[in-house]
Amino acid sequence: MGTRQLHLGAILTGVGNDQHVWRHPDVPGNASIDIDWYIRHAKLAEDAKFDLIFIVDSPYITPDTSPHFLNRLEPLTLLSAVASHTSHIGLVGTLTTSYWEPYNVARQFGSLDHISRGRAGWNVVTTGLEGAARNYGRDEHFEHGVRYERALEFVRVVQGLWDSYEDDAFPADKDGGLFLHKDKQHPLNHKGKHFSVAGPLALTRSRQGQPVIFQAGDSSEGRYLGANIAEGTFAASPDFESGREYYADLKARAAALGRNPDKIKVLPGLFPIIADTDEEAQRIAREQVDNLDIDKLLVQLGRAFNYHDFRQYDLDAPFPDLTGVTLNSYKGAAERLIRIARDEQLTLRQAAYRNQWAKGFVGSPATIADEIERWFNGRAADGFNLNVGTPDSFALFREGVVPILQQRGLFRKDYAHDTLRGHLGLPVPENRHAQAPVAIAAE
Amino acid sequence: MGTRQLHLGAILTGVGNDQHVWRHPDVPGNASIDIDWYIRHAKLAEDAKFDLIFIVDSPYITPDTSPHFLNRLEPLTLLSAVASHTSHIGLVGTLTTSYWEPYNVARQFGSLDHISRGRAGWNVVTTGLEGAARNYGRDEHFEHGVRYERALEFVRVVQGLWDSYEDDAFPADKDGGLFLHKDKQHPLNHKGKHFSVAGPLALTRSRQGQPVIFQAGDSSEGRYLGANIAEGTFAASPDFESGREYYADLKARAAALGRNPDKIKVLPGLFPIIADTDEEAQRIAREQVDNLDIDKLLVQLGRAFNYHDFRQYDLDAPFPDLTGVTLNSYKGAAERLIRIARDEQLTLRQAAYRNQWAKGFVGSPATIADEIERWFNGRAADGFNLNVGTPDSFALFREGVVPILQQRGLFRKDYAHDTLRGHLGLPVPENRHAQAPVAIAAE
Repeated sequence: MGTRQLHLGAILTGVGNDQHVWRHPDVPGNASIDIDWYIRHAKLAEDAKFDLIFIVDSPYITPDTSPHFLNRLEPLTLLSAVASHTSHIGLVGTLTTSYWEPYNVARQFGSLDHISRGRAGWNVVTTGLEGAARNYGRDEHFEHGVRYERALEFVRVVQGLWDSYEDDAFPADKDGGLFLHKDKQHPLNHKGKHFSVAGPLALTRSRQGQPVIFQAGDSSEGRYLGANIAEGTFAASPDFESGREYYADLKARAAALGRNPDKIKVLPGLFPIIADTDEEAQRIAREQVDNLDIDKLLVQLGRAFNYHDFRQYDLDAPFPDLTGVTLNSYKGAAERLIRIARDEQLTLRQAAYRNQWAKGFVGSPATIADEIERWFNGRAADGFNLNVGTPDSFALFREGVVPILQQRGLFRKDYAHDTLRGHLGLPVPENRHAQAPVAIAAE
Repeated sequence: MGTRQLHLGAILTGVGNDQHVWRHPDVPGNASIDIDWYIRHAKLAEDAKFDLIFIVDSPYITPDTSPHFLNRLEPLTLLSAVASHTSHIGLVGTLTTSYWEPYNVARQFGSLDHISRGRAGWNVVTTGLEGAARNYGRDEHFEHGVRYERALEFVRVVQGLWDSYEDDAFPADKDGGLFLHKDKQHPLNHKGKHFSVAGPLALTRSRQGQPVIFQAGDSSEGRYLGANIAEGTFAASPDFESGREYYADLKARAAALGRNPDKIKVLPGLFPIIADTDEEAQRIAREQVDNLDIDKLLVQLGRAFNYHDFRQYDLDAPFPDLTGVTLNSYKGAAERLIRIARDEQLTLRQAAYRNQWAKGFVGSPATIADEIERWFNGRAADGFNLNVGTPDSFALFREGVVPILQQRGLFRKDYAHDTLRGHLGLPVPENRHAQAPVAIAAE
């Protein structure tokens, strides 16, 4: 205890979320729907003592969606299968509060938490893409502010349902014939602005009390939500300074709400290009850039602007003026890109490339470790959520970068815990119905 | 092929849905939330060559709910974990169409179908208990007829989403750089009375094409739905004659809709009391009856009538007149019990006991096998869905009853298939978008 420790997640995206991963000779074409691929990679991450694996998600696709998102396993079913083949690593799945019922979400993440014996985490998202609405009987997506308001209430309902039973509710006393202490089962009776849920949930708490809440929004509303609910965040930060700003702002917001800012772990996404030497990594980076299909990059860029069609603009003119384009999608990312494009006077082509890669994490394992340490010590991150990328890149990280971080005393050499809360140094939340009895003051 | 074969399911309910199972010394008090318990029992059923395991469900509890339902794993997460520890047995989970979104259901059962490599089944229910509404933001449950109308549309939407991709949509051609044939991805664009879902789903079909659809409703509306959508049914039949009536009626209804009635497998629930001898089984049955708590039986009886309080009536007077009590709950079961009580002039006490057990399946393994064969040959069943009950009872079924059925040529000695459709003799449904091209007639 005491010494601050780095945390690592592994983003498992099968055939990959960018253009080159699926074409790698060692990436199976069906990786995103092959449970054995996920189990194998979860075990590799567990062998390297990662805190968690992370499953991205989105409930909407088009023919232009990137490879992994086109055809993939759903996070809860996927993680439940992985749970029973691993023993320590945390299991974090993405699920939107915009198109689910709190009661069903509470049951499924609560079940995953039992199946994994206390390793479940929920990445709370509100869904960026407008088109998702039409998969759920709505003509229009919820407006950005409403989405976040609903998310906050949704998460509070789910957490309330998770406390339906006190921990000693089930004596299961065979001789006495008492299965349940009925007075230790508690309905929720929530009636709020967006949800009305009576409860109780038919599920006890797990060894870690409740699943860990993650969040990734970077807009102002996203940060407000994160400061309220998040125990970990995955928000992308394109460079060190942005990372520091986000880190300080999020923790200050949490402290202002009366929370302990050390109990929110900031784990930005990490998309490194690693090779044996810095020169080789730089060469690979240039090669990847040279091979990029600019049309696909423009589609990817458009995703942050709800599939706005950037192919209508001159590639080498300044980044277009988007006044009038509604930012109801990935609002934080969109606003940041507009700001960067303005500050650095980028062309559309340059902005499309910048949208694909953060700067700085290109080099040998030692260079990558240096950069990780700089972000960690500079309070731009409490750790990172690593895109596993190609098999050789993931191997270089596990076998090259991780040992350096361990030698420097930044990262665990073995697990000291077997729950996700344990890895992250988060307390088991107290059950709201199991407070110590209030003493009645003597007159 | 040719010879009609018996099908067997195993209902896994952990600590059990009746009063005595959880008190058995070999039943762990936490069986219903212990994934290892489910994996172990699924493997036992697979070793005995069962067609499937079956997970019951309901999204509503009270303090009086029976032991298993009070605290249990959610079906989809549970089955996904079991999938990766089994190789042949079918995996059937219950899920209500009243309180889920079709898009999410299509994804989760579709993912289970990939994780299990073609062994998923969905038991479609509409939820009997009014109280469930209050867990999902509604003051009132959907009216019985509306529930079934919604269910039919819901299932059709889900099946449409499952066909989003033609089977050869993903060449994943690394050299050519072609991941997806965009013209083999198909939106659904469904706009119906109850649901509006655009699609496409981000998931290909599995080895068995689509998950198998099961259904259990026994009311007139339930049978109409079953005749339309079911490929297997689990409806309870309290005796042989009721079983024959249901079997003939359901298959006639299906035939009238143009379906092949042989492709709907009727598997009533089976709750046997088995011992080494008939005398011992009869003794156990009497003992169980003697030990029953009539108050709990009345609560259980009330469940079919939406928790109507039967404790207000004289136990030994004739079954009460329920004119005025709305049957919007488990309507088929409630109507049947009223009919039986009238025809046999049962008291309330007798009806409460009758509600707990079907007649006839009490005896030695040979007696149970005889009764199974009588139902099977008498066209009251194509097989049975066995409540596993206590460990010794389940062992007597697997090691006593199953070998007799195998000797008689009624039940497989080994698996001939490794998909659920394979076991049940059901065809792989054709993808609606992969029809043979229409020949253009020469003039």
